[in-house]
Amino acid sequence: MGFVSDLSKIIKKNNSLLCIGLDTDPDKLPTQFKKNSEEIFHFNKSIIDCTHDLVCSYKPNLAYYEALGGTGVMALKKTVRYVKSSYPAIPVIADAKRGDIASTSDKYAASIFDQYGFDGVTVSPYLGRDGIEPFLKREEKGIIILCRTSNPGAEDFQDLEVKGKALYEIVAEKVAMWNAQYNNCLLVVGATWPEQMERIRAVAKDLFFLVPGIGSQGGDLEKTLQAGLRPDRSGLIITASRSIIYAGSGKDFAEKAREEALRLRDMINEYR
Amino acid sequence: MGFVSDLSKIIKKNNSLLCIGLDTDPDKLPTQFKKNSEEIFHFNKSIIDCTHDLVCSYKPNLAYYEALGGTGVMALKKTVRYVKSSYPAIPVIADAKRGDIASTSDKYAASIFDQYGFDGVTVSPYLGRDGIEPFLKREEKGIIILCRTSNPGAEDFQDLEVKGKALYEIVAEKVAMWNAQYNNCLLVVGATWPEQMERIRAVAKDLFFLVPGIGSQGGDLEKTLQAGLRPDRSGLIITASRSIIYAGSGKDFAEKAREEALRLRDMINEYR
Repeated sequence: MGFVSDLSKIIKKNNSLLCIGLDTDPDKLPTQFKKNSEEIFHFNKSIIDCTHDLVCSYKPNLAYYEALGGTGVMALKKTVRYVKSSYPAIPVIADAKRGDIASTSDKYAASIFDQYGFDGVTVSPYLGRDGIEPFLKREEKGIIILCRTSNPGAEDFQDLEVKGKALYEIVAEKVAMWNAQYNNCLLVVGATWPEQMERIRAVAKDLFFLVPGIGSQGGDLEKTLQAGLRPDRSGLIITASRSIIYAGSGKDFAEKAREEALRLRDMINEYR
Repeated sequence: MGFVSDLSKIIKKNNSLLCIGLDTDPDKLPTQFKKNSEEIFHFNKSIIDCTHDLVCSYKPNLAYYEALGGTGVMALKKTVRYVKSSYPAIPVIADAKRGDIASTSDKYAASIFDQYGFDGVTVSPYLGRDGIEPFLKREEKGIIILCRTSNPGAEDFQDLEVKGKALYEIVAEKVAMWNAQYNNCLLVVGATWPEQMERIRAVAKDLFFLVPGIGSQGGDLEKTLQAGLRPDRSGLIITASRSIIYAGSGKDFAEKAREEALRLRDMINEYR
């Protein structure tokens, strides 16, 4: 039971390390869709129905839904519920990057796990252990802590040197310690710098990494897998969003999305 | 025009550095309130109506509203609109601690500024400059970046030493540089460690600090003001939430909240 064991099961069943990011933007929907909350849900449902046997998880980023106000939040709730009712073996991750003092993080955990029904969440480490504890104590959930992100500005603070180590390595070490409590911690490690992923793997040997940066952001898939895979050839969740969900822009968008998901899943497996 | 100049005006007009945190929890409402979204808004409205001449800003923390799902989000939207329509001179800050890669931060900015209508927002520095840029480019808004937070776990990462400086000092230095662009940056600096606030003031001489940690969290008001005030006896936004909004629990809750807000505003002014 719990996020990490559920994740390992679906990775085996679907033979896939691929996570599809449902970062749905109404301005980018295929032309047959109108721009309202029902339509966003229907688009997501189509993507899910045509890829559910190819993925190890789905990951909506909350910002895309919050930007649409109440209708967006409704569409997100329906999307999470749809996966949990139709494909209950697939974990759904809230890409939310939340983090606050403990009493407030407790409220965020209530929002993400109790209101939405997500199985996992991305959180920021900046406030330290007590700010993350309200998430950690949800033993059955996956708590995915930002470590080394995929964007250019990541170097501003994450790469700073602290006693001969980079800050992101210190974060990885701390999280590896916190993980001992419930075995429910993961790390966000971008694909854009494989040598950094290697250093993180060295200090967080057992943890799953959630890996953005393949596809639109230009990360190198082969190097990423070499750097990040555990000896069991698992331990990575490779995320892609735009390159899959917008693979087609016409009536065949779902088939195009499936083709691209299949292509990426199989390419990942080639290098595994 | 813009957040910082609006803030300076209302500080003078209300002779106040006090910001009331509207962290409204339905479980803690006075007994005459029911536990639904309308009631949360009515409670907030009463607090606002009885304190609007004593504050320099209001600051709802989004987690408290998101934890209630759609009804909470509605109550928050109504609360922001109420302040902006009834007391337009008072800035309203979204305590959201958001931060993601640029394309995603852009969506968060749309949510907070365009959907809700907030005047300022708290953001996390962990992803670096490009993740904050979509907020910064909203020139007229206040972008309040986490620097040294008030919670115990803050020391896990924020206090780590980088080339003889603490990480939070490096954050303060960077933000002081970023501020040169539009003069719309502020810093979150907790009241629990005045000596750290002093070091931050040394590198961010002109910036406003948003200061949590007075009241329920035990920070020392006199030391905080000595450490953080600028030569113009301004430059601090002192926040308090629970100690004011739950000062009374009966029918006279609004009067009790006003009494406590008045007491705190005047105590701050004594040490100014």
